[in-house]
Amino acid sequence: MESTQDIIMTTDELLQHWQGHRNLTRRVIEAFPDDKLFTFSIGGMRSFGEICHELLAMGVPAAQGIATGEWGKYGEIEEAPLKELPKTKEEVLMMWDWSTPTINEYWSKIRPGRFQETEMVYGQYEGKVWWHLAYIIDNEIHHRGQGYVYLRALGIEPPFFWER
Amino acid sequence: MESTQDIIMTTDELLQHWQGHRNLTRRVIEAFPDDKLFTFSIGGMRSFGEICHELLAMGVPAAQGIATGEWGKYGEIEEAPLKELPKTKEEVLMMWDWSTPTINEYWSKIRPGRFQETEMVYGQYEGKVWWHLAYIIDNEIHHRGQGYVYLRALGIEPPFFWER
Repeated sequence: MESTQDIIMTTDELLQHWQGHRNLTRRVIEAFPDDKLFTFSIGGMRSFGEICHELLAMGVPAAQGIATGEWGKYGEIEEAPLKELPKTKEEVLMMWDWSTPTINEYWSKIRPGRFQETEMVYGQYEGKVWWHLAYIIDNEIHHRGQGYVYLRALGIEPPFFWER
Repeated sequence: MESTQDIIMTTDELLQHWQGHRNLTRRVIEAFPDDKLFTFSIGGMRSFGEICHELLAMGVPAAQGIATGEWGKYGEIEEAPLKELPKTKEEVLMMWDWSTPTINEYWSKIRPGRFQETEMVYGQYEGKVWWHLAYIIDNEIHHRGQGYVYLRALGIEPPFFWER
């Protein structure tokens, strides 16, 4: 088949896909008891709250990077309601809910052809822009799978994986 | 931006992305001790070997479905070297290594425009073809994340997430 000229998904569909995963992750955060989010872990791994620090640091900064070519760091986004890393479930959810429309806003500014451009990110990761975004989504799915095990180990039923 | 006419990734890149994830999952399977793959679990969840049954059942049958419109079931693929579900790590890896080139072969038969077609899969899941494939890849990442926790709980260092 003609590989390069075939539309796999539209950019609207890609955004919806990303936000669907983010919405599921939000439900996983909500499912954690307040006092377990930053304390519970298995096998010496990070708590799910600490994982959320990473996910929050990769959400809005990635959307900004794709839209503008400037891949900022967590806390550098001027409009962020919290400059420090969240310490409670409430703060994590606040930053999550600020990220959602902020990602959409940056998304609307992405120029055509952008996903096929090659870019160096944070001075060390080189790849096409679609690949950087795929990495970010995949990384969230990967760590959320870890969160599912934590919830099960706590005796809590996690949300259905297919709910977005 | 013009949403619908923008190439996000080529079909070659999508295949490479999928196979990269499958390759990482293979390393996770390899990292399990033979006697733990089908026995170890946390929180009442399935063993990683049982999860592999699901992943194997979603690999080649999905590639076949995308290429031909016929979404077969595990064991129905004529050329499969094993009709029953694998019971040992060796059998899992054998089926994995048969799946890899078989997926590539089906992939080469996918016709242009296929990923934007809407299709009912297994009589119950309706969506665009790209979405079905994304679900299959995401499901593997999700469950592999679970496998990472099992390995850590067993005191085993899992492979790096970014290695593909």
